Amino acid sequence: MIGRLNHVGVATPSIDDSIKLYRDILGATRIHEPFNLPEQGVRVCFVDVANSQIELIEPLGDDSPIHGFLKKNPAGGQHHVCFEVDDIIAARDEMRAKGATILGTGEPRIGAHGTPIIFVHPRDMGGVLIELMETPEDMHA
Amino acid sequence: MIGRLNHVGVATPSIDDSIKLYRDILGATRIHEPFNLPEQGVRVCFVDVANSQIELIEPLGDDSPIHGFLKKNPAGGQHHVCFEVDDIIAARDEMRAKGATILGTGEPRIGAHGTPIIFVHPRDMGGVLIELMETPEDMHA
Repeated sequence: MIGRLNHVGVATPSIDDSIKLYRDILGATRIHEPFNLPEQGVRVCFVDVANSQIELIEPLGDDSPIHGFLKKNPAGGQHHVCFEVDDIIAARDEMRAKGATILGTGEPRIGAHGTPIIFVHPRDMGGVLIELMETPEDMHA
Repeated sequence: MIGRLNHVGVATPSIDDSIKLYRDILGATRIHEPFNLPEQGVRVCFVDVANSQIELIEPLGDDSPIHGFLKKNPAGGQHHVCFEVDDIIAARDEMRAKGATILGTGEPRIGAHGTPIIFVHPRDMGGVLIELMETPEDMHA
């Protein structure tokens, strides 16, 4: 079912500082403009690597789900892994049928790449928060 | 400097259980044979996705560096992110010149893909443990 590893989500207290790290220390050459996703309580910035992306995630607003993560990991850290799927509803229903718990209502939301996403509870995924994202049309190989 | 995202390292108390998760729940179709890396105190198993890999990592022996991680995260979780580089010595020297701390002696060891690797201290990498790995010859695009 899972397709490409679309991105690794990395929480950070400061996207600006993380951009310096990925650009100046690790030498990433393509870093997109950061933007806000207010309905998800996050500000995000994609860093391209040759075959995938790092998604830098900063809390946005008092209710951001990232505050709790940063309380436990003040310097930031790996937050989630996102795999592409062809059909988000089919993927959700298949995951549920196999006993996995979808976070929230289970209704897909529109993610940072403009396509529907869901998150699967880490307790069913070996402690890893997994995002499933419908493959963006313009990212088809 | 950094090239492909070679893999995401995922620590697990049981590679066998994690294989079931990635194969039966997430639908990964190409899962390699697990093998031991005794000099690193780990047993590993690579799960292929379309553009990258998940490296499942189980502790091997009493001195395994994975025991500490699993004590904090008993169910397992994201352990490191591995980027490919062209030349591990040049990458190490460049990281050091920019102030990053290389774990251990700093002398590269041979990693799970048979090429030299180093790990960069997460305190310099926004809380993320980063592995740099010389690109395997047979994985060049």
